[in-house]
Amino acid sequence: MGSGGWEAPPGCHWQWLLVTLKEVPFLRPLPLKEVRVLRDGLRRVVIEAVEPSVDGGRFPAKRTVGDQVAVHATIFCDGHDEIRASLLWRHESESGWREAPMRLLGNDRWLGDFRVEQLGRYLFTIQAGVDHFATWRSALVKRISAGQDVSVEMLVGASLLRQIGLRTKGAQRRKLDAAASALESDASVEARVAVALDDDLAGLAVAHPDRRLETRAETEFPIAVAPALARFSTWYEMFPRSTAAEPGRHGTFKDVCARLPYVKQMGFDVLYLPPIHPIGRSFRKGPNNTLRCDPSDPGSPWAIGASEGGHGAVHPELGTLDDLRALVKEARSTYGIEVALDIAFQTSPDHPLVKEHPEWFRHRPDGTVQYAENPPKKYEDIYPFDFESDNWQGLWEELRDTFLFWMEQGVRVFRVDNPHTKPFPFWEWCVAELKRAQPEVILLSEAFTRPALMYRLAKLGFDQSYTYFTWRNTRWELTEYFTELTQTNVREFFRPNLWPNTPDILPEFLQTGGRGAFMTRLVLAATLGASYGIYGPAFELMEHEPREPGSEEYLNSEKYEVRRWDLERRDSLSAFIALVNRARHENPALQFNDTLRFHDVDNPEIIAYSKSTLDRDNVIVTAVNLDPHHTHSGWLTLDLASLGIDPDHPYEMHDLLTGARYLWKGATNYIQLDPHSVPAHVFRMRRRVRSEQDFEYFA
Amino acid sequence: MGSGGWEAPPGCHWQWLLVTLKEVPFLRPLPLKEVRVLRDGLRRVVIEAVEPSVDGGRFPAKRTVGDQVAVHATIFCDGHDEIRASLLWRHESESGWREAPMRLLGNDRWLGDFRVEQLGRYLFTIQAGVDHFATWRSALVKRISAGQDVSVEMLVGASLLRQIGLRTKGAQRRKLDAAASALESDASVEARVAVALDDDLAGLAVAHPDRRLETRAETEFPIAVAPALARFSTWYEMFPRSTAAEPGRHGTFKDVCARLPYVKQMGFDVLYLPPIHPIGRSFRKGPNNTLRCDPSDPGSPWAIGASEGGHGAVHPELGTLDDLRALVKEARSTYGIEVALDIAFQTSPDHPLVKEHPEWFRHRPDGTVQYAENPPKKYEDIYPFDFESDNWQGLWEELRDTFLFWMEQGVRVFRVDNPHTKPFPFWEWCVAELKRAQPEVILLSEAFTRPALMYRLAKLGFDQSYTYFTWRNTRWELTEYFTELTQTNVREFFRPNLWPNTPDILPEFLQTGGRGAFMTRLVLAATLGASYGIYGPAFELMEHEPREPGSEEYLNSEKYEVRRWDLERRDSLSAFIALVNRARHENPALQFNDTLRFHDVDNPEIIAYSKSTLDRDNVIVTAVNLDPHHTHSGWLTLDLASLGIDPDHPYEMHDLLTGARYLWKGATNYIQLDPHSVPAHVFRMRRRVRSEQDFEYFA
Repeated sequence: MGSGGWEAPPGCHWQWLLVTLKEVPFLRPLPLKEVRVLRDGLRRVVIEAVEPSVDGGRFPAKRTVGDQVAVHATIFCDGHDEIRASLLWRHESESGWREAPMRLLGNDRWLGDFRVEQLGRYLFTIQAGVDHFATWRSALVKRISAGQDVSVEMLVGASLLRQIGLRTKGAQRRKLDAAASALESDASVEARVAVALDDDLAGLAVAHPDRRLETRAETEFPIAVAPALARFSTWYEMFPRSTAAEPGRHGTFKDVCARLPYVKQMGFDVLYLPPIHPIGRSFRKGPNNTLRCDPSDPGSPWAIGASEGGHGAVHPELGTLDDLRALVKEARSTYGIEVALDIAFQTSPDHPLVKEHPEWFRHRPDGTVQYAENPPKKYEDIYPFDFESDNWQGLWEELRDTFLFWMEQGVRVFRVDNPHTKPFPFWEWCVAELKRAQPEVILLSEAFTRPALMYRLAKLGFDQSYTYFTWRNTRWELTEYFTELTQTNVREFFRPNLWPNTPDILPEFLQTGGRGAFMTRLVLAATLGASYGIYGPAFELMEHEPREPGSEEYLNSEKYEVRRWDLERRDSLSAFIALVNRARHENPALQFNDTLRFHDVDNPEIIAYSKSTLDRDNVIVTAVNLDPHHTHSGWLTLDLASLGIDPDHPYEMHDLLTGARYLWKGATNYIQLDPHSVPAHVFRMRRRVRSEQDFEYFA
Repeated sequence: MGSGGWEAPPGCHWQWLLVTLKEVPFLRPLPLKEVRVLRDGLRRVVIEAVEPSVDGGRFPAKRTVGDQVAVHATIFCDGHDEIRASLLWRHESESGWREAPMRLLGNDRWLGDFRVEQLGRYLFTIQAGVDHFATWRSALVKRISAGQDVSVEMLVGASLLRQIGLRTKGAQRRKLDAAASALESDASVEARVAVALDDDLAGLAVAHPDRRLETRAETEFPIAVAPALARFSTWYEMFPRSTAAEPGRHGTFKDVCARLPYVKQMGFDVLYLPPIHPIGRSFRKGPNNTLRCDPSDPGSPWAIGASEGGHGAVHPELGTLDDLRALVKEARSTYGIEVALDIAFQTSPDHPLVKEHPEWFRHRPDGTVQYAENPPKKYEDIYPFDFESDNWQGLWEELRDTFLFWMEQGVRVFRVDNPHTKPFPFWEWCVAELKRAQPEVILLSEAFTRPALMYRLAKLGFDQSYTYFTWRNTRWELTEYFTELTQTNVREFFRPNLWPNTPDILPEFLQTGGRGAFMTRLVLAATLGASYGIYGPAFELMEHEPREPGSEEYLNSEKYEVRRWDLERRDSLSAFIALVNRARHENPALQFNDTLRFHDVDNPEIIAYSKSTLDRDNVIVTAVNLDPHHTHSGWLTLDLASLGIDPDHPYEMHDLLTGARYLWKGATNYIQLDPHSVPAHVFRMRRRVRSEQDFEYFA
């Protein structure tokens, strides 16, 4: 049969022919999908299993500024030809691709990497093709080693070099043509082989591939780059109204300002305030969430909106907008602390929007506004927005503008209340809008719900997420959950923020475990998660009484009343917290999650795990007694190879909580942890170099 | 802001509004990709992680006729609404979808299933949406249980019922409207609740969902349905030229016919013949692959083509095309055996195509045709086709037509030689062409190469594939490999066919392990794989001498000479093979791979695993001593729960190889296996029902 109009591209002789779809005249018409398939196939090299990718590139993988992005892919073609592969990447604001070679790791798996320096979105893709010159060159070496006659091979090589030459100019082209002529010459085979194996020639070949023979991955994979704080952050939640120095007075933003040194001293870098807006009066809840409310009761800050204003106003008793701005500025400039606001998209019945935009609320057939419920539970003091409103576009804009308003006041970090009860497309749109306006913005998703929803919100753009850590207490639970979070694809899009307690959750473990329980949960949160937070001062003062047995609500919860805390109490955990946070700040190993590895302890009440920097210069091994009541001991067996430790040399384990230094040797060593003293080791592992006499460590 | 031309669809009141992209006027223009994203998002329900799927639906998952296809997906939406989900499917020849409800398994994971009855390709997808009536109904039940006033709820329900009514006609519509009126009536709340909770109403609601509120998965996932033989097959490879009854004579197709009872007796259902074409004379290899060849040497059958013809001809000494057709027919009709041919796309230098189509071969600069090589190895008796030929379209057609020619002679099963050295797009096209012509055709991929290539070929359409089983001997190797093949996504597209030996591979284990090694490898192949094959009579006669130490080639390989086998030898394994194959035929558990589970034995030289039917009516437990030299014993601990066995009741283990019956109780029992007798147990597990007195088993 004829060639159907097919024509060889210039410079493409008998050996290597480029084929594209339109040159397949004998194929019957195919459905569009199959055409795509064949078109892909004709480009010979297959690029698959690209990482990092989230849902095949539908969502971005997450990184922070300065990260090196390692890109893996499986790349192969039929037969035994050599392949060259390039990683292409660009920031979304750039039009052209940057390019770097990838390298073969083995078994068709390739690796390339690039650094993300800018906030916003990057894209990357992969291009690869058969490298005919490299194939020829490596066969030549084998033939020569086997003592075969390679004179005809010289002619094949010459032809290849001339083709490469057609893709070059000037000196490069002259060099390639000269080499081709040399291979075709009458010179001795030895002399010609020497020309053929010139590394410069190989370099020219790599630098000028025949792009027409290459395959480009069909997807451009996005990477979302956030500030480093999105990855490594230490949160302290505090009710501003409970910060007054004098008893009985309602705390203010100025009081919060005065509390900043205390927060800083403990080592926190995000100060998160529950909603700061006017609080509704209708159906206001009294202490302990009672339905009866005294005129003096302050109400829940989450019942947002009153005659004084809604989501754009501040509660008059807290101060003014100027005071809030001053707080945000002072925290950032003097203490390096970001003030995070709570964004809760719901209203009290008194919120101005209820009257201004009745169409944003669901009205029942009896004319009343539908309050929040989770049947049979009712929340009469809260109205949800109706995202199925006729005027949903206006609602979306209003909510986005709420964020933008606070961003204009200087706020960069938000904790978003119950995002899983608002539509996913709203969040995808809203987060994109906010990041477009201000790429530094960081959003924490407060969704305690089913895994699929929590993961979806993270994919849609939330930078950090609450987790099930709050209820994971046993070694099996913790190991399984943190393996999922850090060793599976989840780590590409879901950044856990671990909370041992929140104003809504006083876990049973803290209710019953005493001081040791608080220390245990703090160390776990601070070392398992690059980001964690506590709700204080309830945490450091070990508040542990539930509203009633079986409840996770605090007795006399700050959600419904103003509390006064004695921060000077001698049993406060603030110094211990400062110690733990100092370890986090001084050890980069603890500022990432993906090197987390669990190690074996022969006592199931003790959990042990390590984190290290990629170069393993900084290695932290944490061991925690999970039983808050009894001392436990056991033999810890470290996977030394994964930590880069020579099993034949002693190494130092420096406990950053007690200051003790242990000299260990080999994989298995003894540990003992007393919950009535310090229930955990946070070891900095130091390799010895040289000898035991000349006692010297890395770092 | 205004509604931007937005209009509520008919029957859609204040509660539930359908939004589509064009009604988002305030969004700035977005890149096409983002538009797609938002459009998807606005349809609220998310459908993800659909199984079975291969590369996101790019390739079909594989099933065989009569299979029930279980479809899993993660389906969820924001908030707490109830969801309904449907599985839609159709054969590619049908235009309309069939539909069945899916059910929630928990944690947002849903399951539906359908049966594939026809060969060819099926498509399935998923449609799901919020079910407002079900949401309302389940809330009503909770409200009533909590003793709440539900009178306003009655009005909400009435409105919902009227909307459903708009999607119905006649009696259904009258029933729905009447129910709505009843809910709005002055009747007692009890009476109205009774109407509201009528199951018929719920059924009508489910049957008439508001399709506009539903999300359809973006992909139509393909399922490739092959004959059952693609899943469960037992192969016997035999050189026809070595089948003559009299010494010194070249075997013929007639001799092969006479050998059919022998093959059948051993329980095989596919008889695979190496290439049956005329053999080239140029550079013909002598015995043991020597370069010197005697005129009487028959040459390798893979050096295809001579003056007598090429891939469409039969070797004259084997008989005629008529003889071959008679063999195929006799094997199928009398013995239920399919004759499989070897398709090896390469030629000897004497193949007619070398002259007829010189453009299908690569010519070197010195004018010679490029022979096959893997530098520094040279195969001067073999020419590969050049798929980069100018006339590659003609070559593709020629090769496809080779298959079609043999299919016209009645052949339905092919073993394809080295498919990984031909372009992937060729195979995708060719296999589709063959299956279009004859959906019964089954193709076995003989690619012993890197995993990515082997898996790709399976995705492209090969029904079965050779595997690394041939070299997996230790418990760790076997457990890891077969877990990958049967418990990961690989099982959706890659059907392993296990070969303990081939004419190319006499593994070291068989060279050195004696009779026990052959029995061990046979039992492993036959019970780990629903499909397996042996190269005989070398296997049953325990041929074990390598060409030289360190080689996997057979000494005096049939590849280069005619052999005569003494099938009557008293030590032949043929009776043992028959026993093993009978167990396979009588126990459906062994005819599938996906229920494979490994069980613990406290001796690492013994491997144990089970297979069962989905209903666990048929359970087979296999235990094999992997050490061919020594007797081993150990305690086998079965995961009884996974096998549906009550640990408190005795159960029978019936060894299908020896006939012995053991009464076991509890998970852990003793086994002992002697490689000099029978190195394996193949237990049929029988649950007792009723009591120990009334000794009765399932099946």
